Amino acid sequence: MAAERALVTGGAGFIGSSVVEALGDRGTSVLVVDDLSTGSAANLHHVGGDVEMVKLDIRDAALVQEAFDDFRPDVVFHLAARTDVRASMADPHDDASVNVLGSINVFAAAARVRARRVVNTSTGGAIYSPTAPIPTPETAPVAPLSAYGLSKRVVEEYADWFRSSSGLDVVTLRYGNVYGPRQDPTGDAGVVAIFCERLLTGRRPVVFGDGTQTRDFVYVADVAAANLAVAAIKDPRHRVYNIGTGVEVSILELVRATALAAGVDPRSVPPLPAPARSGEVFRSCLDVRRAAAELELGRPVPLVEGLHRTLEWITAR
Amino acid sequence: MAAERALVTGGAGFIGSSVVEALGDRGTSVLVVDDLSTGSAANLHHVGGDVEMVKLDIRDAALVQEAFDDFRPDVVFHLAARTDVRASMADPHDDASVNVLGSINVFAAAARVRARRVVNTSTGGAIYSPTAPIPTPETAPVAPLSAYGLSKRVVEEYADWFRSSSGLDVVTLRYGNVYGPRQDPTGDAGVVAIFCERLLTGRRPVVFGDGTQTRDFVYVADVAAANLAVAAIKDPRHRVYNIGTGVEVSILELVRATALAAGVDPRSVPPLPAPARSGEVFRSCLDVRRAAAELELGRPVPLVEGLHRTLEWITAR
Repeated sequence: MAAERALVTGGAGFIGSSVVEALGDRGTSVLVVDDLSTGSAANLHHVGGDVEMVKLDIRDAALVQEAFDDFRPDVVFHLAARTDVRASMADPHDDASVNVLGSINVFAAAARVRARRVVNTSTGGAIYSPTAPIPTPETAPVAPLSAYGLSKRVVEEYADWFRSSSGLDVVTLRYGNVYGPRQDPTGDAGVVAIFCERLLTGRRPVVFGDGTQTRDFVYVADVAAANLAVAAIKDPRHRVYNIGTGVEVSILELVRATALAAGVDPRSVPPLPAPARSGEVFRSCLDVRRAAAELELGRPVPLVEGLHRTLEWITAR
Repeated sequence: MAAERALVTGGAGFIGSSVVEALGDRGTSVLVVDDLSTGSAANLHHVGGDVEMVKLDIRDAALVQEAFDDFRPDVVFHLAARTDVRASMADPHDDASVNVLGSINVFAAAARVRARRVVNTSTGGAIYSPTAPIPTPETAPVAPLSAYGLSKRVVEEYADWFRSSSGLDVVTLRYGNVYGPRQDPTGDAGVVAIFCERLLTGRRPVVFGDGTQTRDFVYVADVAAANLAVAAIKDPRHRVYNIGTGVEVSILELVRATALAAGVDPRSVPPLPAPARSGEVFRSCLDVRRAAAELELGRPVPLVEGLHRTLEWITAR
């Protein structure tokens, strides 16, 4: 992808900044588009290469179009989104205003500048039916519980519509539970960052429900690599790829693994119980064989290694 | 439904005003919510009963909530929408801003005031797969060609989400091609009104494509009656009902029928050909047996009779 021009929406955010970092390492010219509502310019301070940023809200169609017209990207990585499941339950309108309308603006602008491909971001953790098989393949029925999961589903439908109506080449990645450096440990999403932060400051982790609910924890650098891989392949055979590890980990197992990675005796930090939360699926683990076969990804970073790197980052901040 | 309070979004519009008329005739207290962008207060001048109107845009969540809080409707008829298929293709963002985000506001407000039921409006003409059987039952695959059809589909998905997350009782009606008095003959949608207007002013009708494309033309009073019927039944067995006639009529047949209803020799007004338009399905006719069996509707107004009434209305204006 050298000599290409990449526009990354949400590029100052947790996952987006890792995509920008990977692109910068390859010499790609990057324009970051971010409203800095949850992202931060500080997330890009370590990034080398030809990277510029414009602050704008993707809900503003005219500003989005202007940024695309000026930069004329070859490829677009669309990571700007509302990502807080619980906030989406309380305010589905705000969630949809960014995720649905903002994505329509991004797709329309990408179509108008004839971008070669858009890599779209969706959720593998919040989109499948609660009765889907585990691990869950891309072909499983979709039935989001949360407004967040629904808005991401709707964006996939608009991606298909732009493909059929204007030939826009959109490929969607459905992520598992992404964790790693630069995830905000002070927010209400991002269980790994929150657990790490609490352990490092001597506090017990809060576990909602009985802790036997499961997730597919995928390290952020693997997600960034998947973004670049799907942008690079010539003719993707599918429109949707799960991006995860295929390993099902319970929240109680995560608590224990995080304690061990932090050098803390798990028995000294028993979880603080809290009520289960609405809108969240009970079990989640992705069947990632499609991506493994077609995207030529390396082996994912193991959880213990990823937790170690995350703890190092939080400590060094 | 006497003594109930009904809020009608889009109640000053073509179809909405017919719903308001039917409610007024029954003595229901009605609050019309309309931004008057395509609707008009004049559409309600003939309506009797206890009808008030507040001008607001359903995209404004705070104003929507305020109107619901003040009026506290028992039942909500949600007809406010962008309805122009071609406009939606040119500007899917504007279409979705009203249809998707506006509907989220309406559903959220209805849930908060604990409305007994919401009768939602969708499309039978622009939502089904082009390969669906004709006439098309509600169980046929959904695959909208147009951004308008997609936004209406998305609203159905949000309706399901509000049902599962907050118990809101939403029933969706998927209309055929609605025609009748108060349809705007000067716009770009509403082929019956346009044909009638042109014939009455001595102009030839414009036919896009070869005119063999078909539609299910349903008279507006039948649609209003279906709205009231679905609001009244105790426990709807389904979440979605097709509302149409089950009669498949080609555009060329419609031209001929309109000419005859207007007392014009069809041979004297040969259609003006124009290129086919994108986003439109070729064949459309609804299987309406579910509504007929469960909603206890009368026989639909036959096309010749409906055209006659429509021509009378246009002439009398």
